[in-house]
Amino acid sequence: MEAFFKLKIPTEVFHIINGFSPVGEETVSLEDTFGRVLSVDLTAPEDLPDFFKSTMDGYAVQSKNTFGATESLPALLEITGEVSMGEAENIIVESGQAVKIPTGGMLPAGADGVVMVEYCSLLDEKTLEVSRAISPLENTIQPGDDFKKGAVILPAGKRLRPQDLGVLAGLGFLEVPVFRKPKVAILSTGDEMVPVSQNPTPGEVRDINRYTLGALCRNMGAVPVYMGICSDHFEPLKEMVEKAVSSADIVWISGGSSVGTRDFTLKVFETLPDFELLVHGISISPGKPTIIGRTGAKPVIGLPGHPASALVVAEIFMTRMLRTLSGNMDARHDVHTVKQAILKRNIPSSGGREDYVRVRLEKDGEHLKVVPIFGKSGLISTLVEADGLIRIDMNTEGLYEGDEVDVMLFSHV
Amino acid sequence: MEAFFKLKIPTEVFHIINGFSPVGEETVSLEDTFGRVLSVDLTAPEDLPDFFKSTMDGYAVQSKNTFGATESLPALLEITGEVSMGEAENIIVESGQAVKIPTGGMLPAGADGVVMVEYCSLLDEKTLEVSRAISPLENTIQPGDDFKKGAVILPAGKRLRPQDLGVLAGLGFLEVPVFRKPKVAILSTGDEMVPVSQNPTPGEVRDINRYTLGALCRNMGAVPVYMGICSDHFEPLKEMVEKAVSSADIVWISGGSSVGTRDFTLKVFETLPDFELLVHGISISPGKPTIIGRTGAKPVIGLPGHPASALVVAEIFMTRMLRTLSGNMDARHDVHTVKQAILKRNIPSSGGREDYVRVRLEKDGEHLKVVPIFGKSGLISTLVEADGLIRIDMNTEGLYEGDEVDVMLFSHV
Repeated sequence: MEAFFKLKIPTEVFHIINGFSPVGEETVSLEDTFGRVLSVDLTAPEDLPDFFKSTMDGYAVQSKNTFGATESLPALLEITGEVSMGEAENIIVESGQAVKIPTGGMLPAGADGVVMVEYCSLLDEKTLEVSRAISPLENTIQPGDDFKKGAVILPAGKRLRPQDLGVLAGLGFLEVPVFRKPKVAILSTGDEMVPVSQNPTPGEVRDINRYTLGALCRNMGAVPVYMGICSDHFEPLKEMVEKAVSSADIVWISGGSSVGTRDFTLKVFETLPDFELLVHGISISPGKPTIIGRTGAKPVIGLPGHPASALVVAEIFMTRMLRTLSGNMDARHDVHTVKQAILKRNIPSSGGREDYVRVRLEKDGEHLKVVPIFGKSGLISTLVEADGLIRIDMNTEGLYEGDEVDVMLFSHV
Repeated sequence: MEAFFKLKIPTEVFHIINGFSPVGEETVSLEDTFGRVLSVDLTAPEDLPDFFKSTMDGYAVQSKNTFGATESLPALLEITGEVSMGEAENIIVESGQAVKIPTGGMLPAGADGVVMVEYCSLLDEKTLEVSRAISPLENTIQPGDDFKKGAVILPAGKRLRPQDLGVLAGLGFLEVPVFRKPKVAILSTGDEMVPVSQNPTPGEVRDINRYTLGALCRNMGAVPVYMGICSDHFEPLKEMVEKAVSSADIVWISGGSSVGTRDFTLKVFETLPDFELLVHGISISPGKPTIIGRTGAKPVIGLPGHPASALVVAEIFMTRMLRTLSGNMDARHDVHTVKQAILKRNIPSSGGREDYVRVRLEKDGEHLKVVPIFGKSGLISTLVEADGLIRIDMNTEGLYEGDEVDVMLFSHV
């Protein structure tokens, strides 16, 4: 039971995870930047927008000519031209003049605002009646209103969303420097494991972790590299781990749920060059037998063998790890959305460890209720039923019906 | 102003959107099902798991032999063998006997439970001392505990998550029937538009919508098909729209922000075979000039031209449309996560329309605060700053500082 005293608590584990570095940089075309993480601060090479434009269909005027205009006492202006979309017209708006302009059109020189077409009527082809005053700059966007030349538009570490691509497009970024997607070597161990394509004989099981962990990687913007299944023996495992280390940025071994294999995993890790053991067991349930180490700068992870436990540990810790390796430093991008809701049943808990309990959200009239999913923790079906997890602190004996709890929604939908 | 009275309110628009059908089905390999939507109910072809297994390292026994066992009065059992992982051993556990078993191992005939190794000690090679009683089935999983043969494991319309792939893997589904990914033809109009690769002259702007709308599609599991930029003229637009209709499942035209082009879009739609106009303007801000129609069963959409307005309309309505076309009928999968938080400033609103206001979330000690992002609604930078939107009902005059509001987080991170 000596190992018990070496268990790390989750906050220590998160701290260790934050100590890893992004895996490297590359340049991708704007098209491919959605969901990618910027590797440098980007600054505006020009003003956005870079000309003075109308935000309405109407007439470009000198605003002072409209001051005091009302429906009963309209201002009268002479129409001297029309702006075409996409053109910088060679027109000057003098006092007393108006030029027709479409939404997005470039304001002609002399004009400092736009009267909406709704407040204009034509007395004749050349004479405009304006029934409402505008203030200077009204219904316009000035150069640099979005971003001024030289301003930081998006910071390094930002995961790019549709609107972020929009700004990059507006400023003409055809290629964008981003962090590489981390490559995750996924390796399942166990003499009982067979590939999904094979019919298991009694006592054998299909390799579930390859698919659950692979999907979780893809959801986090990482690239799974499937190494296959390894039997519970030292030499073949060592060989496969070495291959995994050389072909990926992080290695995940799941399995080793039997005592013997658990030992193998760590023993194999210890043969890796420049190996350091960082975590040997975490005081959580499920997920206690998790191993985190590094070979040089590269993390190597031993996950539990039970598919359900492996996925819960990956959801809690490996999502954070992938975020760190991806260079994602966006404080506004939490890995998990947290929702508050009312617990519908008591949940007992043993002290001395954090419990992560699978829960379902249920609408109950106006309120959102949290229903714990009981059932054997080794069953993958409990995760199929679940919408997320709730954490039970190690210093409590459980949670009570009616408590408001934080539900950590799964990182995927 | 007659058009004003034809505006649809958002709930009517959502109802219309729900009337469309999924785009079709295909079969993909298990590997590629993450994020895809099941097109049929899947049932278990066999029990999962399909054998009686241990969830602990320990000894398989007849539980009745342990009844009453304590540390001071342990039960003594004869060790008659050992189970290997992945094997169906030819051993029978008789009363008074114990067989060593690893986690995940198959229980030998006769045994009905497993004593954890922590409660066992060896008196000699053949004699086991058990210091704690187990109840029947303790520390085991029975065949069918996850899913019984014939049970529905995942329903049609379910978007597949990592754990769902896990169950499919466990049951040996190598190929999975899913709905096709909707193809979205994206088409930008405007004489002022130039491709991102081109330097705009004064009055011209780069085509932002291609990138923002394309990324939004990809986030929703749809496939953007880029049609390019079309000038503000009837004939070329008609030609491009026809090409778009024939090459995609839905057509999005953005642009037509000037009065003239707005008319073109609808006029071109009206030339499509079997065209029906469903929505001509929505009583929201931004996004009023949105058009929704159908040519046969295929939706054709006119989005506002301002990149910021187009993206807000896409976020509110087109995400729902893509969800419908994707066949996603998962009631537990909301397009938008909603978070409650306290408003930090008053937001005025005109009545008669729903306002969607861009907001930022800010941590304020324990509490989450909502900060409205003011600024001209045509600026894309306001969306870059934002984490989501809040809706202001058409029957209110605004929201007040200190109000608890629902923040609709963007569908992407």
